[in-house]
Amino acid sequence: MASHPKPTALIRSLPATVPFVGPESQERQRGRPFKARIGANESVFGPSPKVIKAMAAAAPDMWKYCDPESFELRTALAQHLGVAANNLVIGEGIDGLLGMIVRLFVSENTPVVTSLGAYPTFNYHVAGFGGRLVTVAYRNDHEDLDGLAAAVRLENAPLVYLSNPDNPMGTWWNGDAIAAFADSLPEETMLVLDEAYGETAPRGALMPLLPLRGNVLRLRTFSKVYGLAGLRCGYAIGVAETIAVFERIRSHFGVNRMAQVAAITALEDSDYLLQAIDKIADARTAIAEIGLRNGLEPVESATNFVALDCGTAERSGEIMKALIDAGIFVRRPGVPVLDRCVRISAGTPQDLALFETALAAAVSR
Amino acid sequence: MASHPKPTALIRSLPATVPFVGPESQERQRGRPFKARIGANESVFGPSPKVIKAMAAAAPDMWKYCDPESFELRTALAQHLGVAANNLVIGEGIDGLLGMIVRLFVSENTPVVTSLGAYPTFNYHVAGFGGRLVTVAYRNDHEDLDGLAAAVRLENAPLVYLSNPDNPMGTWWNGDAIAAFADSLPEETMLVLDEAYGETAPRGALMPLLPLRGNVLRLRTFSKVYGLAGLRCGYAIGVAETIAVFERIRSHFGVNRMAQVAAITALEDSDYLLQAIDKIADARTAIAEIGLRNGLEPVESATNFVALDCGTAERSGEIMKALIDAGIFVRRPGVPVLDRCVRISAGTPQDLALFETALAAAVSR
Repeated sequence: MASHPKPTALIRSLPATVPFVGPESQERQRGRPFKARIGANESVFGPSPKVIKAMAAAAPDMWKYCDPESFELRTALAQHLGVAANNLVIGEGIDGLLGMIVRLFVSENTPVVTSLGAYPTFNYHVAGFGGRLVTVAYRNDHEDLDGLAAAVRLENAPLVYLSNPDNPMGTWWNGDAIAAFADSLPEETMLVLDEAYGETAPRGALMPLLPLRGNVLRLRTFSKVYGLAGLRCGYAIGVAETIAVFERIRSHFGVNRMAQVAAITALEDSDYLLQAIDKIADARTAIAEIGLRNGLEPVESATNFVALDCGTAERSGEIMKALIDAGIFVRRPGVPVLDRCVRISAGTPQDLALFETALAAAVSR
Repeated sequence: MASHPKPTALIRSLPATVPFVGPESQERQRGRPFKARIGANESVFGPSPKVIKAMAAAAPDMWKYCDPESFELRTALAQHLGVAANNLVIGEGIDGLLGMIVRLFVSENTPVVTSLGAYPTFNYHVAGFGGRLVTVAYRNDHEDLDGLAAAVRLENAPLVYLSNPDNPMGTWWNGDAIAAFADSLPEETMLVLDEAYGETAPRGALMPLLPLRGNVLRLRTFSKVYGLAGLRCGYAIGVAETIAVFERIRSHFGVNRMAQVAAITALEDSDYLLQAIDKIADARTAIAEIGLRNGLEPVESATNFVALDCGTAERSGEIMKALIDAGIFVRRPGVPVLDRCVRISAGTPQDLALFETALAAAVSR
């Protein structure tokens, strides 16, 4: 057939970009596995043993579709957070929720504000729905709250994205600053507040959850400290009126049953969560020390990773390449001047020993 | 706050409909669990024991994001099907793929053709992207191929949906008829051929896979005979040019890692697949016989369910209600005249014994 059916004009206009190349792709290209997987801000410490047990026990039930309401998980989360179940929507990870949020608020040419170098998958969704991305540079490795607010007002943007703690730099604002930022936005603007790293944030760094704000959707996930990235389970917290709108577009059976089982069990095991947070804090300290021992200044981090300042993008590129060649999977921020850093996720002591050896070799070249 | 940020005009225009209410919701309303879960065309026979074992073994790895390329699964499927890996895209079940396909081809007011009473989730996605649904009535409980083709031409529709074997009736066309239908479509029309029940279809009922047609996207799933509905894993088969376009919009990390592991293992266990197909065939026969013993004519089925003809919608409604009240989860088609039937999914002998008892009580009222 000479001509195939053509997608819409919007789809035809999109590039075939991929926000992230997975470590598996790199392993296939390299022809050998990585020795340390500390590039995607996963939790190498894994899920709780109780969660692993619950997954194994639930495996025979996987013939059943999930509960499309995620009722038990929402109920458990509501209790955990002190909100109502109708303040929560579960999604296929924060990535899936971001896609839905963009779809809810963005039509073709809708301006959307984010920081230059912030989460690429959000940008991917904005482009995918025809939105127009307006970016604001980081200041001193922090997202620029005043700059973001000014861009929102200038563009009359219905959507602004902010991560706190921040990815890819690991920096954070205090909750008061975030609240002031939310208060400063025009009434018709929704703040997408990505708190993927909320559990590792220091006291006071998260904006108080209550009272819920009508102009904020907060995103959290089981992919980070809970160690369940592979299962795709995140949630949005918002006022009931906004959460209800997701029902009009979400894939009702999209959150898999294994994720529901694992997430409920993970929430119950608060001891494990605290242990994981401690291990992550230790790993952050270790990464910072390894950086300093090798002449790379760490950026102070509230997340499960540390950005190490290599001085220039050229230097960070060389170091990243050397690390990857040595079997250490890491990434770096995508834009100047953030890209002067390499970003190292919390690893086991063994991961970090391998990293240190490879880094020492890289910097001494 | 008096006013919250508002979603787009399209989103505001959508109803808060839900394509399906899950059995769990009904159980919560009833205050007690169902005794037999034979309403959602799941496979009560479960996943293969090897797959269950593989899931349990993979549980500790769930801290890792999935391979966004689903490389191993696509490679295994390509070999299984005799196509190339770039003829395949993996999605979060057929539901997820349908959402993507609609997004690829449908803008506001785009006409989309389907059968009246066919898969509600497809319709939900069409509405969700602002498409205009054009429906064609079934004829003799079969989707009306000539009627669908005529509607496509009349409306100049870029997308037409067909399931073969059919859901909710279980009927089918032979592969030759499907091929003739595909050939009859205008060049600019894409046929979405939902083959969720392809594995249980009789010989000759599926259109030959090769050569791939540029105007057909075929959808298959691990949710039915493979017994993995809870994990959300389906795939689309098409020409490379069309499959590549999914890369522009899909959630690259959306297919969960557990699904990838389970699906690969399921593909390897062809013995189990054949056993499951046999059990489903036996259950179909048993359901038909139970129907006949209770005065309900079965519609001949190529799927993992049987529609039993109750004569009128009033009667089928009464019978469905009585079955549900007796703890037997079943559904029925949503529109006249299909809704004169109740639809019974393949069950275990125990499920079907419970069903027979409840049905006998229901019809004798």
